Amino acid sequence: MIEQLTLIGPGLITGSLALALKQAGAVQRVTAWARRQETIDQALASNVIDSGSTDMAEAIQDASIVVLGTPVGAMAEVLEQLKPHLTDEMILTDVGSTKGSVVEAARQSLGTLPATFIPAHPIAGTEKSGVGAAFAELYQGRRIILTPVDETNEASLSAVSSMWEQCGAEVISMGVEHHDEVLAATSHLPHMLAYALVDTLARMDESEEIFEYAAGGFRDFTRIASSNPDMWHDICIANKEALLSVLHRFSEDLNQLTRAIEQGDSAYLLDTFARAKGARDRFAEKF
Amino acid sequence: MIEQLTLIGPGLITGSLALALKQAGAVQRVTAWARRQETIDQALASNVIDSGSTDMAEAIQDASIVVLGTPVGAMAEVLEQLKPHLTDEMILTDVGSTKGSVVEAARQSLGTLPATFIPAHPIAGTEKSGVGAAFAELYQGRRIILTPVDETNEASLSAVSSMWEQCGAEVISMGVEHHDEVLAATSHLPHMLAYALVDTLARMDESEEIFEYAAGGFRDFTRIASSNPDMWHDICIANKEALLSVLHRFSEDLNQLTRAIEQGDSAYLLDTFARAKGARDRFAEKF
Repeated sequence: MIEQLTLIGPGLITGSLALALKQAGAVQRVTAWARRQETIDQALASNVIDSGSTDMAEAIQDASIVVLGTPVGAMAEVLEQLKPHLTDEMILTDVGSTKGSVVEAARQSLGTLPATFIPAHPIAGTEKSGVGAAFAELYQGRRIILTPVDETNEASLSAVSSMWEQCGAEVISMGVEHHDEVLAATSHLPHMLAYALVDTLARMDESEEIFEYAAGGFRDFTRIASSNPDMWHDICIANKEALLSVLHRFSEDLNQLTRAIEQGDSAYLLDTFARAKGARDRFAEKF
Repeated sequence: MIEQLTLIGPGLITGSLALALKQAGAVQRVTAWARRQETIDQALASNVIDSGSTDMAEAIQDASIVVLGTPVGAMAEVLEQLKPHLTDEMILTDVGSTKGSVVEAARQSLGTLPATFIPAHPIAGTEKSGVGAAFAELYQGRRIILTPVDETNEASLSAVSSMWEQCGAEVISMGVEHHDEVLAATSHLPHMLAYALVDTLARMDESEEIFEYAAGGFRDFTRIASSNPDMWHDICIANKEALLSVLHRFSEDLNQLTRAIEQGDSAYLLDTFARAKGARDRFAEKF
């Protein structure tokens, strides 16, 4: 049983964590810190937290586990604010979409990386954001990636692991850098393509009409372009190297596909589409 | 009431049309021609057709409306086969994803474009294909684009229009070329991006693991990469010019986004993501 969970910046991800733990009877008390009182009021109204404060000292007092829910670009600043109030007993974890940048921010802001800091990334979410969109079932059957580092203490790792398992999630571990490469491919790159596609079409002269005749495939394909722009800006900055690497690889492949269309290269088109369909169908079976 | 509807190449799209018309009590008899007996057997087993034949003359005898469901790349050849059996009383229409190429194929194969030929494109479908995947509700609330040409006769246009309305669809008209440009943007380009993305990832060394950690956003984003490769090969060939035009436009925008990530250009990233999110949210409201 977690005595006190403290959310730093309650939102969809941390709010859903709190709701899931409450539903599982796995937490006694949830508190939160937010920059704005409005966010705290919203978290209270959504029954995500029991109390909250815009004062960091007050919010994290007596915390057993502190969960950083701030956008990855604001981590360093928030960690600076958190630093004077952290105790050795508090377990610190986060839910950021990039892990290298968060570990780096923690090292810099806190001087050394506390052994109780567990970098984490729940592979779950919707295109919505904000604590009002939180729901207890978000993590059922979903994966949580923990990226422990050399400094990590086993007891803290096991506490964070157990916290997520009680939300119905499957917990796995991998290296920080490897996490950032894999996520650049499966999440960050698709978001860039969805944003770029919708923006390309929105800037065409007939954009109103174009969207008028879009169908279900387009709706699904572009859903992630409704994601939070600030959050994705931060991810682009935080995971720049890995993202650029997959972006360049994709651009080369798209250029080759474009040349095949120009040249009417049927074999190339059929091979590529069939290989992609095969991979997508195998993925869909597993999901 | 349509006396006899004849499907040339029964599949998801034409099969769903037949089922919808049957459910609405708007057709007396449905027949089909297919290259392979197996397809006819499957259409019979799915209650899509009342009878079928691999012999064109037999299949289209007494047809009131003939619906071409063949991939756009096979239209010319099928129209050649159809030609000797067409009568002036038969209305001819299609469900191809491109319209310029179909009109061109009809002009060439039939000598002149019959006044009773109505080029049509239902904006509906799933990533599945084949007549076994057909269902009566596919067209409820969906749009059907008709692209009448100079030769088009009003009575035929109105018969095809009414056929689709009885399936619960909304029928609209636009020019052939305009259709192909709009669909290149909203449908053909997204399919290319989904195929290219899945193929890029599938060819990476860690591809198995990459798909392992993909989440809901990825599943939605890549659903259309499970579409039929032959059909999309044909579309690439048939709508080459319009598709290349939007592909080039998209590539330029993606290159600019890539440069912004390289240079850490926050203003560009935030503007682009926010503009895309705005357009996607407005689209989602309408859908």
